[in-house]
Formats: sequence, C-alpha cells, structure tokens
Amino acid sequence: MENIYEHILSHKSIRKYKEKEVSDEILNKVITAGTRASSSGNMQPYSIIITRDKKQRKKLFPLHFEQTMVLEAPVLLTFCADFNRMRIWLKQSDAPENFDNFMSFLIGMIDATLASQNVALAAEAEGLGICYMGTTLASNGEISKVLELPEHVVPVVGFSLGYPDEEVAARDRLPLEAIIHREKYQNYTEENIREIYKKKEVDGMKRYLSHPDLRKLIEESDVSNLAQVYTKIKYTKESHLKYSADVLECLKNQGFLNNIKSEDTTIILKQ
Amino acid sequence: MENIYEHILSHKSIRKYKEKEVSDEILNKVITAGTRASSSGNMQPYSIIITRDKKQRKKLFPLHFEQTMVLEAPVLLTFCADFNRMRIWLKQSDAPENFDNFMSFLIGMIDATLASQNVALAAEAEGLGICYMGTTLASNGEISKVLELPEHVVPVVGFSLGYPDEEVAARDRLPLEAIIHREKYQNYTEENIREIYKKKEVDGMKRYLSHPDLRKLIEESDVSNLAQVYTKIKYTKESHLKYSADVLECLKNQGFLNNIKSEDTTIILKQ
Repeated sequence: MENIYEHILSHKSIRKYKEKEVSDEILNKVITAGTRASSSGNMQPYSIIITRDKKQRKKLFPLHFEQTMVLEAPVLLTFCADFNRMRIWLKQSDAPENFDNFMSFLIGMIDATLASQNVALAAEAEGLGICYMGTTLASNGEISKVLELPEHVVPVVGFSLGYPDEEVAARDRLPLEAIIHREKYQNYTEENIREIYKKKEVDGMKRYLSHPDLRKLIEESDVSNLAQVYTKIKYTKESHLKYSADVLECLKNQGFLNNIKSEDTTIILKQ
Repeated sequence: MENIYEHILSHKSIRKYKEKEVSDEILNKVITAGTRASSSGNMQPYSIIITRDKKQRKKLFPLHFEQTMVLEAPVLLTFCADFNRMRIWLKQSDAPENFDNFMSFLIGMIDATLASQNVALAAEAEGLGICYMGTTLASNGEISKVLELPEHVVPVVGFSLGYPDEEVAARDRLPLEAIIHREKYQNYTEENIREIYKKKEVDGMKRYLSHPDLRKLIEESDVSNLAQVYTKIKYTKESHLKYSADVLECLKNQGFLNNIKSEDTTIILKQ
C-alpha cells in the first residue's frame, strides 16, 4: 500500500479516460470517504449528484465550456451545498427553519469542497483519475436546472472520474515559502514576486504553448508573458464579472440571499 | 503503512492536545501536501498563516468564540483566499489586474479549502490531530486585522493542529443514500427524512447532552429535539444573518466586491 503522503503528492488532473465503467461498489466506497471529511456542526450540508447518463452529459457539456471529459469520462460528480434536506427535517421537527442565507451557503460550500477532496484522494487510491472543473461554479445556475436542484441546493465543485488513459507529469507549484506566512502576513516585495514566479513563468508558458488552441490564441494576440495569458486570455475581467453576477443570481434564485442586513451593510438585489 | 481509505475513514476532530511542539520540518511537509491539491488554472490563489505565538493566539481566542484549542494547540493554521500575490505579479508583468471580484474570492475559497483538506489528512498521517473551526469564516473580518492581511486576502477555513491528548470516537454520519442522487436530484419525502435522521437524532442528542454547557442550555430552554438544538441554540437565524453581513463586509473591505453588475442584477453596498 502506497504511503499517504506520497499518494497526496502524486496527484495529477486526468483529462483522458478509458471507456471502462466505474462500478457502483467503487463509487460508493469513494463517496463514503467523502462523508468522513469534517463538517460544520456535523450537519453534512451537501449532496453529490452522480451523472452517468449520456443525455445528461450532453446537456452539461456546453455548461462546462465543452471540456471533453464531460462527454468522455464515465462519471461526473457534482458537489452541491445543500440545506434543503436539513430544512425539511427542521420543519418536520417544529424547529425554526434557518439556513436560507449567505453564511449558510458558504458553510455548505466549504463542507462540499472538503468532502470532494476526500473523494478525489480515495478515487486516486482506487486507480481512478479526476479533473476538477471550475465551470461547475461558473455555470451553477444552468447546471442547477439540468440536475433539477430544488431551492437551497447549489453546485459548487465537481470533477470527472474514470480510469486514466493518459500519462501526465505533475504540474509545477509555487515554492512553499511563497504561500506560508508566520504569525502575520508578510507582504511581498517586487523582488520576492519575481523570484516566486520565475519557474512558473517558464513552465506555465511552455504548457500553454504546447496546447494547439491556446498557442493559436496566444500567437494571434498581443500577449507576451504568462501573466498576460492569465488575464487577457484565460480569465478576463469581463468574464469574471459575468460569473460573479451569474453566481449571485443563482444564489438568489436558490434561496440563499434572503434578509441580508446589518446596521451598516445592506445588500439590495434589483431585478 | 496504513491504507489510504482506512486513513480517511478514521478521521476525528481533536480538541485536546499535548504540549509537544510540531516541528517546522513536519509542518512544512504537511503544508507541501496541501499545495498538491487541485487549483483553478494552477494559480494557487491562497496563503496559509501559521500561528504559534501566544500573544497572537490570545487575540484570536475571542474571535474563535473562545474555543480552547486556540490557546492550547501548539499551532493554528488559517487558510486564506489570496489574490494579492498574483495581482502584484500581474502588475509587474503589465497584465490587466483582474481577480478583485466575487467570483475570484470563491475560486480562492475553493482552492484554499481543497489545500486545507490535504494538509489535514497529511497531518493525521503524521500522528497529529486537527479540528476545523468554522469561526475562521464567521470572524474573518476581525481575524484579517489580527493577521494583518492586505486587500484581496480573506480567511476562509482554519484548524488547530497538534499531538492528540484525547481518544474520541468517530462521529455519526448520515446514510450514504441520503446524500447521493443519481442523474437528477430526487427530493426527499417526509418518510425519507424521518428515516435519514433517525440515528442522528439519537447520537446527536446524546452527544450534546454529554457536554455540560450545552446540556444546561438545552435544559433551560424549550428545546425538545436535535433539530431544535441546531436552530434554537447552535445556529440561530439571527447569528447567521449577522455572519452573512459580516462576511460580506469583510469581502467588501478586502476588495472582492468590486463592480458587480449584470443586465438584471445589481448589488449595492450601502455604508
């Protein structure tokens, strides 16, 4: 049996999968691992939607920005913040129905995310591969419709799952010292930043240039370094402002933005 | 070496710690495990603040609602969504400075949370114990001040860390079938809910009654079941609305709520 530490260190995102199915037995096993993650007040305010059906995957494909794994991996898992289940129980028990607010969404989001990482690691221990898809959050309003989520249930993270059909190298990471701070946040100097991102600049640019579509985009634009790839091509201000509004709209529609007020802050959502 | 699956299944939150220090070597090792978690676009938009100093812990103690681990565990880790580091690099590279919006905060929050779960599991593999503290999010504005976080850095999850000085049993969990849905969300019937929460009602109530302070609160109030403990004592609507406003206020102050608008949604933050 592999060392746990080595196992965690060997994670790579897998985007190409064999056609081989993932058995219900293994799926139940790895999801059970998910449920052992810490949970606020042990409420387990999350649900996991298992997608195998081809029709469902075709509907999800554009919402996940046409990532091929959505069609080709045998399983997609969508982890949702879920206070619907708990609220039915509260109502049944003559308890005040709370958890229809922003804080509750964030608590559900954290717990769903912790569970997902346990599932990911357990899956990898079974010889499976996974690839997280940030599009789960970006498109969460439309995904909610496809998965027929009721109020107080919102997709937050998700990944494809299946037996790997590619060998990939582990991605580069920033130096450890770049992400830890002792006692207080030590802000970065210009020199720090140059040093921290030096390796990433080389590795990241090489990676993006090896991807034909991205290479074309990079060559056709006025992009001259990796930082510009990030915010001129991959994550533009416009796209992020749209996702910000979309996610808030989803939170409102799913009943997580009720009654937000305090003495000095009022949020007004206007239609 | 323990089986990875068994390792994940054996997680328990530890609230009592030995005085023994956690060495820098082990701390670096487990945090390195954190950095191997998946990260959106491999941006690693998070920072981890290590607190050992007693003075700092005294300041954090009330913000963590006087949980004893804050004073007694040798280490606290605070995982923050962090786009400050990346934005300095963008500016240095003449790239548009994005990531000062709500979507970016959520991306940082997810990545910080995934990293935290890797750190938790790696720590447990080293014989350490951890206990997540939801107060990291609830008090994130005040915690930001104590940790001197700059704009675009926000605490999201955190836990105490140290060598366990208690034996605890694994907590109850909902049945697996209660949290998974195949293809589409299957909403719960009244009967489902009674079945799902039957065991939790017994185990949960027993647990809270064994805790002297909670027992007193329960006995002095008109609480008659576990659901009521949750929303009349532990998580009231009032407290959650306050935290919702506090967290939004923190997001605004730390520069993550800029320019949110779309055709049909406008968020106005009023002072």
